Amino acid sequence: MKLATLKDGTRDGRLLVVSRDLRRASAPDDIRTLLGALESWTESLPRLQRSYDALNAGGAVDAFDLDTTRLAAPLPRAPQWLDSSAFHSHGDLLDKVFGMPPIEGKREIPLMYQGASDDFLGPRDDMPLPSEADGIDFEAEIGVIVDFVPMATAAASAASHIKLFVLLNDASLRVLAGREIKTGFGFLQSKPATSFAPVAVTVDELGDAWQEGRIRLPVRVEWNGREFGHPDAGEMGFGFHELVAHGARTRNLHAGTIIGSGTISNYEYRTVGSACIAERRGIETVDHGKATTAYMKFGDRVRIEMRDREARSIFGAIEQRMVEARRP
Amino acid sequence: MKLATLKDGTRDGRLLVVSRDLRRASAPDDIRTLLGALESWTESLPRLQRSYDALNAGGAVDAFDLDTTRLAAPLPRAPQWLDSSAFHSHGDLLDKVFGMPPIEGKREIPLMYQGASDDFLGPRDDMPLPSEADGIDFEAEIGVIVDFVPMATAAASAASHIKLFVLLNDASLRVLAGREIKTGFGFLQSKPATSFAPVAVTVDELGDAWQEGRIRLPVRVEWNGREFGHPDAGEMGFGFHELVAHGARTRNLHAGTIIGSGTISNYEYRTVGSACIAERRGIETVDHGKATTAYMKFGDRVRIEMRDREARSIFGAIEQRMVEARRP
Repeated sequence: MKLATLKDGTRDGRLLVVSRDLRRASAPDDIRTLLGALESWTESLPRLQRSYDALNAGGAVDAFDLDTTRLAAPLPRAPQWLDSSAFHSHGDLLDKVFGMPPIEGKREIPLMYQGASDDFLGPRDDMPLPSEADGIDFEAEIGVIVDFVPMATAAASAASHIKLFVLLNDASLRVLAGREIKTGFGFLQSKPATSFAPVAVTVDELGDAWQEGRIRLPVRVEWNGREFGHPDAGEMGFGFHELVAHGARTRNLHAGTIIGSGTISNYEYRTVGSACIAERRGIETVDHGKATTAYMKFGDRVRIEMRDREARSIFGAIEQRMVEARRP
Repeated sequence: MKLATLKDGTRDGRLLVVSRDLRRASAPDDIRTLLGALESWTESLPRLQRSYDALNAGGAVDAFDLDTTRLAAPLPRAPQWLDSSAFHSHGDLLDKVFGMPPIEGKREIPLMYQGASDDFLGPRDDMPLPSEADGIDFEAEIGVIVDFVPMATAAASAASHIKLFVLLNDASLRVLAGREIKTGFGFLQSKPATSFAPVAVTVDELGDAWQEGRIRLPVRVEWNGREFGHPDAGEMGFGFHELVAHGARTRNLHAGTIIGSGTISNYEYRTVGSACIAERRGIETVDHGKATTAYMKFGDRVRIEMRDREARSIFGAIEQRMVEARRP
């Protein structure tokens, strides 16, 4: 099943069921928002599934063409947004570049911080930022959306709480990140609003690509129309069930909480490329002693998409521009 | 004005206007939740003020006795919860104890992380936690609640966005915190649910104690019925307007966002005591080479209150027990 959210002026938007080919949509009468659906998922799921089946069969009388430009993030706001750094190739490279000693225990305990979840951007929204000098970067990631996860849920049972998958751009401001990681307090100013691809999908849409808590498919990243990388999302050092359990170790996660993978990255980055600029700059630094690829400028565009083994777009694409924020 | 939220089974609870002496309350017909009030504060404020004036004058016909045990946090959930470490005496001491080099630029740039804001506890709620071995600590803090703050708002104009003040217990799990600060990703597992005193108050309730973005009054902390400390909240190294601006540097803060001061602390900690156990342990370590005060046990109680210069309770008191969480 594929679900999206139409911008309608409210904080949670209007839930849409979207056809598998991402062309058609319908707005269920009885379930108004994705957040509401997740809060009673057992009841919501079969009702939404019926709409989805009708839509794919061409039998939904209230269906209309999907206009991606009018979409918000599938969840325009979420109870929590917990982002990991679960790809070891990414972490190892950045440690090397920043000249940091390897983080103790990082192979055994996931790295995770909490990001802002009250102001997500849709797939075609411009991303307003205050300054190019902050080092604007994109980060292509996979995320999972959970129902209510009680505190201290173990990884083995955490898998059953994963209800939906999303594709996202966890934009980063690298100049600010360098300082923030050194303070030990973690990322705050270095993490502006996060953007999401058009639809959230249920696990059946992933087919056999969903294995051991990982999606074994490449993500394609383009910067200003040129391919930047296509690393495989299956190379996570932790499965999503482990990331959910890490997040829930000492707190409840309310329904709608999103857990991210961190920048998708592979050890074969020289052949597959990268899903963020910092990683390419890291490779340049290792190879040539200094980074030559500059960060993004205002007006730059990023496109992020994941296709299944039959080359069909799973989530639809993020296509957005970085723009200068208006001064308040 | 003083505002509280009654638990009513919904995620945002039911807004109450509370009398200055914290004895009586009424539930406004036209404004159902504090979050809703904050989203249109200019319209809400005069209407709530009329209820408050009637309540204090004894002229509210629908008034009832306030039952603190039935209260949620003033905001049971908030768009963001950004917590600082704005008391330099606290930071300096803990740096010394952890053997960390002083954080670069910490006198010029606030330290701030994002905590969970989807699961706040009320003033009499037990705090469920998975393990005593995590090093359970209380932290008495002041917080401010803002209306919508646009990205890149300067400190000078940030002050006008501060609408309410709260008193809170930012409980910490110190054993987990030590590792998390070293990863650079900051506090996540080490920060369980945050608890709030009964009422949020407008600035006029603080009288002349509100100066330069600080509340110049002591907070009183008791642990199992014995005074633990009464440091003054006025000794912040940054004013709240500066903390709000720091939080909004690269993101919007939606109405209802809470910005915390961090553990209240004074350089005169040997005479005024502390607002968290870690600080006392730090003093013991500096003085005697090792910490002798153990962290909290299940069943332990903490009480946190702030009184005005006439000894009247401003926010009401947090009085809560630490308890073992049920295993899921």
